[in-house]
Amino acid sequence: MAAVDDLLKANERYLAGFPGPRPKNPSLKLTIITCMDSRLDLFGALGLNIGEAHLIRNAGGIPTDDVLRSLAISQRALGTEEVVLIHHTDCGMEGFDDTAFRAQLESETGRAPTWDVRGFDDVRDDVRRSVEIVRGCPWVPNRDKVRGFVFDVASARVEAVD
Amino acid sequence: MAAVDDLLKANERYLAGFPGPRPKNPSLKLTIITCMDSRLDLFGALGLNIGEAHLIRNAGGIPTDDVLRSLAISQRALGTEEVVLIHHTDCGMEGFDDTAFRAQLESETGRAPTWDVRGFDDVRDDVRRSVEIVRGCPWVPNRDKVRGFVFDVASARVEAVD
Repeated sequence: MAAVDDLLKANERYLAGFPGPRPKNPSLKLTIITCMDSRLDLFGALGLNIGEAHLIRNAGGIPTDDVLRSLAISQRALGTEEVVLIHHTDCGMEGFDDTAFRAQLESETGRAPTWDVRGFDDVRDDVRRSVEIVRGCPWVPNRDKVRGFVFDVASARVEAVD
Repeated sequence: MAAVDDLLKANERYLAGFPGPRPKNPSLKLTIITCMDSRLDLFGALGLNIGEAHLIRNAGGIPTDDVLRSLAISQRALGTEEVVLIHHTDCGMEGFDDTAFRAQLESETGRAPTWDVRGFDDVRDDVRRSVEIVRGCPWVPNRDKVRGFVFDVASARVEAVD
C-alpha cells in the first residue's frame, strides 16, 4: 500500500476541525520561503493559522527563479508585503556536490539537467545570500521587510541571521 | 511591528513539544508537491509527523524545472520513492492572465521576467498535466507511484484526480 492511502484516512479525521473557508489573500501579508525538509512543520513551529501566510518550499529554501516567480505572484496578485527566509541545520543541500550530481544525472539519462543544482557550503552565509537575492529582484515590489533565519532541526528553534 | 515577530514568540512555545532530532531521509519515502496557498496545512490535513515527507511548494503547485530539481534531489540523495501532487480549489493561478502579468512586470521594471508565469484554466486538468510532467522527467528515477489530488479549501477534503 502506498503511503498516501494512510494520509487520506488522516484527512478524513481532519475535516471536522477545519475552520472552513478563508480569503485567498494571506491575512498576515506574509510569504515564507523555506526548505522541503520533512522536519519543518511551519504551521506548528511558527504558530500559523489557516489563511495567514504563503509557504514556498524547495530543496534548500533557495530563492531560485521559480521561487521569485511565486513571490512576485504572492505580492502582486495576492497582497503580501513581508518575506521570511528560513534555512535549517543538517540540510541535504549543505556541502552538496553539485558537479558530481550533475555528472551522475547526465551519465544515467544521457541528458544534463536543465537546472542548476544549488548546493551551498555554509547555512548562515547562504541565508544572507538568499536575502540579498530577494532584495535584488526587480519583479518583487515589496523588498524592505525581508529577513533571514535558521531552523534548528534538533530543537526546533528559529534564530535570526543578521 | 512585522508579522514575523509574533511568529518567533509562537516558536518559543513550540519547542517543548518538539519530538527532537529525526533522520534526514523522510521515513515515508514520500514527496508532496503542492501550492504555496495559505489555507493548506499539509501536516494537519494529512496527519503528517515530523520527519515523514518532503514538501515542495510554489505558486500553483506546478512541477516547474525547480520542482523537478528538488524532486530529483529528494529521490536520489534522500531516498524518497513516492510522489503526491496536490492542487486546490480557489487557486490564484486558476484563470490567471499570464500575458497581462508579464506585460505589467515588463512595463513597471523595464525587464520581462526570466520565468514563465504558469497560470492554468482548470484545476483537475492541470493536476493530470502535472502528473504527466513528473512521470516524463528523466532525472526523477522513481515514477511508478505518482498520484494527483485536489484539496478543497472550504472543506479541507483531499480528493483523487483520476
